[in-house]
Amino acid sequence: MSSKYVYFFGDGKAEGSKGMKDLLGGKGANLHEMTHLGLNVPAGFTISTEVCTYFYKNESQYPKDLALQVKDSLARVEKSLGKKFGDARNPLLVSVRSGARASMPGMMDTVLNLGLNDETVQGLAEQTGNARFAYDAYRRFIQMYSDVVLGVGSFRFESLLEHSRRIRNVMADSELNLEELQALVKKYKSVVLEETGKPFPMDPTEQLWGSIGAVFGSWMASRAVSYRRIHRLPDDWGTAVNVQSMVFGNMGDDSATGVAFTRDPSTGENRFFGEFLPNAQGEDVVAGIRTPMPINLTSAAGSGLKTLEELFPKNYAELVKTYQFLEKTFRDMQDIEFTIEKGRLFILQTRTGKRTASAAVRTAVEMVEEGLIGEEEAVLRVTPEQVEQLLHPRLDPRANKTVIAKGLPASPGAACGEVVFSSEEAEVLRKNKKPALLVRHETSPEDIGGMDAAEGILTALGGMTSHAAVVARGMGKPCVAGCGAINIDYSKQQFTVGERTVKRGDFLTIDGSTGEVIVGRVPTINSQLDVYFSKFMSWVDKRRTLGVRANADTPNDAKVARGFGAEGVGLCRTEHMFFEDTRINVVREMILANHKNERETALAKLFPMQKEDFIGIFREMKGLPVTIRLLDPPLHEFLPKTKSEAEGVASILKVSVDSLMEKVKSLHEFNPMLGHRGCRLGISYPEIYEMQTRAIMEAACELTRMNGFEIEPEIMVPFVVTVEEFRMLKANIEKVCKDVCEKYQTPVKYKVGTMIEIPRAAIVADKIAEIADFFSFGTNDLTQMTLGLSRDDAGSFLPSYVDKGIFAKDPFVSVDQEGVGELMKLAAERGKKGNSDLKLGICGEQGGDTATIEFCHRLGLNYVSCSPFRVPVARLAAAQAALKS
Amino acid sequence: MSSKYVYFFGDGKAEGSKGMKDLLGGKGANLHEMTHLGLNVPAGFTISTEVCTYFYKNESQYPKDLALQVKDSLARVEKSLGKKFGDARNPLLVSVRSGARASMPGMMDTVLNLGLNDETVQGLAEQTGNARFAYDAYRRFIQMYSDVVLGVGSFRFESLLEHSRRIRNVMADSELNLEELQALVKKYKSVVLEETGKPFPMDPTEQLWGSIGAVFGSWMASRAVSYRRIHRLPDDWGTAVNVQSMVFGNMGDDSATGVAFTRDPSTGENRFFGEFLPNAQGEDVVAGIRTPMPINLTSAAGSGLKTLEELFPKNYAELVKTYQFLEKTFRDMQDIEFTIEKGRLFILQTRTGKRTASAAVRTAVEMVEEGLIGEEEAVLRVTPEQVEQLLHPRLDPRANKTVIAKGLPASPGAACGEVVFSSEEAEVLRKNKKPALLVRHETSPEDIGGMDAAEGILTALGGMTSHAAVVARGMGKPCVAGCGAINIDYSKQQFTVGERTVKRGDFLTIDGSTGEVIVGRVPTINSQLDVYFSKFMSWVDKRRTLGVRANADTPNDAKVARGFGAEGVGLCRTEHMFFEDTRINVVREMILANHKNERETALAKLFPMQKEDFIGIFREMKGLPVTIRLLDPPLHEFLPKTKSEAEGVASILKVSVDSLMEKVKSLHEFNPMLGHRGCRLGISYPEIYEMQTRAIMEAACELTRMNGFEIEPEIMVPFVVTVEEFRMLKANIEKVCKDVCEKYQTPVKYKVGTMIEIPRAAIVADKIAEIADFFSFGTNDLTQMTLGLSRDDAGSFLPSYVDKGIFAKDPFVSVDQEGVGELMKLAAERGKKGNSDLKLGICGEQGGDTATIEFCHRLGLNYVSCSPFRVPVARLAAAQAALKS
Repeated sequence: MSSKYVYFFGDGKAEGSKGMKDLLGGKGANLHEMTHLGLNVPAGFTISTEVCTYFYKNESQYPKDLALQVKDSLARVEKSLGKKFGDARNPLLVSVRSGARASMPGMMDTVLNLGLNDETVQGLAEQTGNARFAYDAYRRFIQMYSDVVLGVGSFRFESLLEHSRRIRNVMADSELNLEELQALVKKYKSVVLEETGKPFPMDPTEQLWGSIGAVFGSWMASRAVSYRRIHRLPDDWGTAVNVQSMVFGNMGDDSATGVAFTRDPSTGENRFFGEFLPNAQGEDVVAGIRTPMPINLTSAAGSGLKTLEELFPKNYAELVKTYQFLEKTFRDMQDIEFTIEKGRLFILQTRTGKRTASAAVRTAVEMVEEGLIGEEEAVLRVTPEQVEQLLHPRLDPRANKTVIAKGLPASPGAACGEVVFSSEEAEVLRKNKKPALLVRHETSPEDIGGMDAAEGILTALGGMTSHAAVVARGMGKPCVAGCGAINIDYSKQQFTVGERTVKRGDFLTIDGSTGEVIVGRVPTINSQLDVYFSKFMSWVDKRRTLGVRANADTPNDAKVARGFGAEGVGLCRTEHMFFEDTRINVVREMILANHKNERETALAKLFPMQKEDFIGIFREMKGLPVTIRLLDPPLHEFLPKTKSEAEGVASILKVSVDSLMEKVKSLHEFNPMLGHRGCRLGISYPEIYEMQTRAIMEAACELTRMNGFEIEPEIMVPFVVTVEEFRMLKANIEKVCKDVCEKYQTPVKYKVGTMIEIPRAAIVADKIAEIADFFSFGTNDLTQMTLGLSRDDAGSFLPSYVDKGIFAKDPFVSVDQEGVGELMKLAAERGKKGNSDLKLGICGEQGGDTATIEFCHRLGLNYVSCSPFRVPVARLAAAQAALKS
Repeated sequence: MSSKYVYFFGDGKAEGSKGMKDLLGGKGANLHEMTHLGLNVPAGFTISTEVCTYFYKNESQYPKDLALQVKDSLARVEKSLGKKFGDARNPLLVSVRSGARASMPGMMDTVLNLGLNDETVQGLAEQTGNARFAYDAYRRFIQMYSDVVLGVGSFRFESLLEHSRRIRNVMADSELNLEELQALVKKYKSVVLEETGKPFPMDPTEQLWGSIGAVFGSWMASRAVSYRRIHRLPDDWGTAVNVQSMVFGNMGDDSATGVAFTRDPSTGENRFFGEFLPNAQGEDVVAGIRTPMPINLTSAAGSGLKTLEELFPKNYAELVKTYQFLEKTFRDMQDIEFTIEKGRLFILQTRTGKRTASAAVRTAVEMVEEGLIGEEEAVLRVTPEQVEQLLHPRLDPRANKTVIAKGLPASPGAACGEVVFSSEEAEVLRKNKKPALLVRHETSPEDIGGMDAAEGILTALGGMTSHAAVVARGMGKPCVAGCGAINIDYSKQQFTVGERTVKRGDFLTIDGSTGEVIVGRVPTINSQLDVYFSKFMSWVDKRRTLGVRANADTPNDAKVARGFGAEGVGLCRTEHMFFEDTRINVVREMILANHKNERETALAKLFPMQKEDFIGIFREMKGLPVTIRLLDPPLHEFLPKTKSEAEGVASILKVSVDSLMEKVKSLHEFNPMLGHRGCRLGISYPEIYEMQTRAIMEAACELTRMNGFEIEPEIMVPFVVTVEEFRMLKANIEKVCKDVCEKYQTPVKYKVGTMIEIPRAAIVADKIAEIADFFSFGTNDLTQMTLGLSRDDAGSFLPSYVDKGIFAKDPFVSVDQEGVGELMKLAAERGKKGNSDLKLGICGEQGGDTATIEFCHRLGLNYVSCSPFRVPVARLAAAQAALKS
């Protein structure tokens, strides 16, 4: 470990730079970089992430040198500003912020105005000639510090503040006078004494170390720890601490504070966009307590509010120069925090701006066109999750809808659900598989779980950069924010809009793209994918080496899949066709057959239906490969479960209920997942697979003759465990294929392969591969067997397993790479050893998961197969995997 | 391939030797060796196994040179005997026999007297001056050849023969006169013409090649193929063909034929033992159609029959010299076939004699004492299966029994079952899990399946070396043979003994050690293991490196296990204790608990019971290691299944039936094997494992303090899939252990380890091993998961999978080495990498299987654990594995 722990920045000089994110955190590295770049950044210093790591390795002790280094750097800050920390007449005030490599929830909130006490507040008052401002800063500081460092709940202070407002009958804190603020400070301090048993600390150095300790403490806060576990970030990254001199946006009408984006974070349009509040501190904008004003006309969206450009024209011009410079420098859309202190512009922070999915695509494409970035970088700029958001449904424009209010279009997409007024309730509804629409005055980090659980979020307060808006965009959740027309009454569990009342449990629809709030349920349709998207996806497809197919059981599925760019069908489950109304009873006839010839009679009835299905799918796929899995589920899945169902079926099939129930009983299995299914049925009843093979090949032969398609069906045998069973079944399949080709005098090529979905198949993959044309990893079953985990039964403990970190992710969502992945690796290696031409794919549900796709790319699979709607997501994930490797 | 295919032996010279078993087969190599040794072996030649391999590789063609080499060798045989093959006046007759490296069922039966036809039969008659003998040989030859080579069922000839006997009103074939035999030959030939459409071949060369072809054909007979599959013998071994000049034991009263053992094959006693028939061919002795006579007084068993020693004193003396010489030479008990032709002794065959289990042990021990073999060879001489036979129960000598008849004590052990008269019926009963006692006139190779299915075999005809007796001894099945007192009526499905009638389905008991046949069921007790066995097992234990433990759930199990030499308990299933009558309702109380404190109240009631169990087991094991598995099965296994059961339970537990049924429903699982079980319960309800751990440790501490035992409990966590879950549970376990040791102020050492029973655990074994003291392979579950095969549901297809050769053996009986074994290897290697001190064991059912034990030895496991009764078997298998490696 280096013995330098503290890095100074200020006066155009900085000891760090943007390359030092690991050591200084993202925020710290940016502050140092901005200082380098000559921006007017308030001086400060960064305590490195190594101190955090040291702290946790050494029983919460700091390195010996740290205190001295902090003191030295603080002296440089004092010198830079000509103020002294703790000086009664000319006090230096600082902010303290956490800053890890990546931002994460649960980390300590900012502490502002640190250094104030009963003496320095006088100094600040004298220095600024504004005692009211000084006491306002002091009461804010006490509240923030007490909440964040001392653990005294904010509500204790908020209720005192509200009480004062009510007595004075004013709406805004800014309307309280000096005496009232002084009285509040007194009350705040007694609350601290009452809650903590100790007086509020008056020593600025004690305040500083208290905040530093709180930052490090928050690194292990449970929310941060679970976020890291979910995103697989290591605990030993640590967080840095940024201590920075304060500037004030609340020093009067010549002061302001705001947030700006270099492009529109909602649409991606290349226009400067932002919000500010005059005479306010930064937290006021983000917290959404006051509704902010636009920085320019394009941000105003016809609100009629005054703009920064109008009120602070000189500062606005500076800001424009700054944003242009910053975007060029960082080569990405920036989110800039600024403060104007008595007419002087300070840049407090710049960082990559959060944006909606369509904004991400549009900025990536336009930045390539502007020559700012290359195509490959553009491909890496959009996340697969963002592409998925683009595929989310929106309101059907033809549907009737009753719009009752309009708020800010904070996060696009349409959402509909039952109204709830707390995050807890939203989570309860999700557990019950009901859609929730979360309605709040405003949201806070405590609401993350509820926002995730809800279909959409509606807030009464806050702007486009409020907590609710930023988080919802990140999550891809529709959100309407700052909808002042709604009056929420938490105690009555309802809100009113004019005369109309909406109660908890009522259905409500929001359109996050327009800001509309609509009563009841409105039908939705899929997004129109725009020209930016098409261009972007064309770059994506150039970069990827992994094929993307879709799981499609019907001609319609196949059509949708092709529309989304699928390059074939990776899994066509023949049994899904068996469940159709017109067929299920023929299937039952087959199952109830007592002899082979009875079974063959029923199969003969199924044959033309199966053939018609395959013709339809082959026709839609126009020569693209189609992998068809032969019958897989145990036969009892097709039989009635209860006696009353059985009665209906028995009368249709003209058999006795008793004999039907007898059959149901005889086919019952204790563990059907491990039972008589898959190719075991093919071994027991060869005539079933023969019928299916014949249907596939006749369909292929007929279409080849009629349309001249080049169809190469891939016939897939499920549930193989030994090479012997595959050898037997393959011989039967080949015989039928030969017969059909001869009958049609049409030499259709075909492949015969297996699912790899049982651990043993992975283990003996070399032997199976010797006679197989392809493998497809059936990661659903492979996960069940490898982990001894029934997907149908895991509900009672799997969530707690993920919560406790026993599984990093739900292994049915993202392949368990350490366990299941290891078997896949083994199978891929051995398979290639047995047959170097072997084609490898994956067709489990996890095939559409980003991490799984990257893993499959590393394994060298030929393709992934996923649900049709995830195909574009998979295409991007595949391209990014190729670029990253 | 060498171009020499045919190897001659005769006149004291032989082209082969006993080292050439692979090329000449076991029988062939022995004939060559015996000739070398100077024994009077009839001349002949062996066609090598390479010809068989060639034949199957080249579409049933022989190598070009073969015909010529056979002709040359035949000429040498003719020269040796001064006879000519096919010569009308001085014909050479030969026998043709199959002979692979190891004998196996389904291979071609011997063809004797080959070379006879309508002309040579005259020559034989003139040459021997015994026309009756010549025609008797001829009719035997036609029947044998037609059956074995032409596929004409023996019964066609047998019925003609029986008809002749009936007309003449004689009992024995030997009482038929020349004219009758001549008439039979005529009839036999018309049967052949009728059945095959061709006349019986008169050309001796055609006869010879027909027989050679039949031998090779029989190599691929389904019974032989499935025998090889079951014993994992390769098909490309091939069989040899032995062609040997005939000598005749049926040339009159100065001729005889017999079989002798160098020691008593039943008890192992060192005495010359055998049976013969005067004026008979060899087949007559083995077929059991005539009851044979003893070769000497010790073989007579008080039968009062004349002996070979009395009737043929010179030949007997020669035979004694021969047997002593052969046993010294081959260093093992020999089974010798001899024929006396007109006063001259020929040795036809010598081979290692089959023997009972106790004879195997006694001969092995005595041969070491005689200096014939070493201890290691003795250990390899007894098979684990034979040791198992020794552990079979015998009749309780104090029990009342009604002996209705007495036969030959053909294969020791007591058996009891429902009387059946066909092998098919025995197999049906086995399928229905009912014991069958197979009663037959005599048995034939077609009966192998039924004999295997039956508990025991009773035959009316045949001696100690009859088919029934030899096969039953090999199988370890009790058998009483040659019980002439019973009169079987197949058509009425009954037999009578004097006035008493026993019908199909009646219970019957036999004692294969005494020959007693007893009506009804007689209680049995375990075998007394004799001094030979103790000595033998002491040698066994010296040789093995693999430990042998037992699976024992109760103090009584533990006691039995120690008695059989177990070196510890490898698996104590705590839940078996939960099922006891007095406890099950307390367990249910625990399951029905709605809160942790209710659950703890129920657990507190279970605690003293569990502790008592552990005290009992530790006490029995007196300091040997005991591995205790914490609760494993899903909780619903302990709840009532039906509503009526629920009603009973509800009233005992004082809960409502509805709430009980609700709980049953909520705990229902679709695939309980893959559900909420094993350590997943320990994660969900930590208090259960804590109670169990406390019970184990308090038991250990108390006994340590009281008795000064060195007890080191091995606490085993089942169903682990990730290192995280094991880490959490281990921390809890260690906390409880520490608490208890402190409470008792007794520092008891303990180990904490895991089952490896889910594929993922094997894959991440290195990580688990880093914090585990031991692994125990749970091969039952590991097989289920690795093969995707539920043991409870596999019945509907697993037998056919074994029949079809998809699985070489039932993977629940013998570990699937290619699949499951590969995972075990991986886990063992990775486990040792993670922790070089890791102890490895196996506790699945397969832990007592010989092949599995050998595999475990090769893997380097520390111990196997099996059921108490298999412990001695496992000890021997472990010793043999060590000696073989």
